[in-house]
Amino acid sequence: MTAMLVIVCYDVNTETAAGRRRLRRVAKVCEGVGQRVQKSVFEFQINLMQFEELERRLLAEVDLTQDNLRLYRLPDSRGAEVREHGTFRATDFDGPLVL
Amino acid sequence: MTAMLVIVCYDVNTETAAGRRRLRRVAKVCEGVGQRVQKSVFEFQINLMQFEELERRLLAEVDLTQDNLRLYRLPDSRGAEVREHGTFRATDFDGPLVL
Repeated sequence: MTAMLVIVCYDVNTETAAGRRRLRRVAKVCEGVGQRVQKSVFEFQINLMQFEELERRLLAEVDLTQDNLRLYRLPDSRGAEVREHGTFRATDFDGPLVL
Repeated sequence: MTAMLVIVCYDVNTETAAGRRRLRRVAKVCEGVGQRVQKSVFEFQINLMQFEELERRLLAEVDLTQDNLRLYRLPDSRGAEVREHGTFRATDFDGPLVL
């Protein structure tokens, strides 16, 4: 199957310890498959089957009453243009959350 | 000109007061043109001229040594599929940042 560009972004409510755990688990699911491009944005080059599997795994981690998860599926990644500006602060991502 | 789907997401370093000000200003630029879908993700239905103007205005607000700004331009928005799950916590977005 053809690879597509998939963008996944999430807002997880980190007011509770459970929320911060969800945030880490969502990131972990994404890290195994895609490329982190921002704190809560990942890009993927995956096929439709992998996309469905990714969505299923993410839905198993989030709390739909508290979090927001968005998946953009671009069947023809050649048509999409990505413009990136500025620094990539990957070092901050996995430290303990100070809130 | 034809409207395209544009996704803008940003990571702004909010460790300083200046950073928190940048975050508010970036959000303000986006709010005037598009639809907020997450804390730091906006969607736009704009044409190429508006896209270039938006990018120019955002670049005027961010600090490229500290922040990260990504713009996805999908010329044919019909080809993109957006899947949204969970809650939209808009009320949290504009309160004072407690860090």
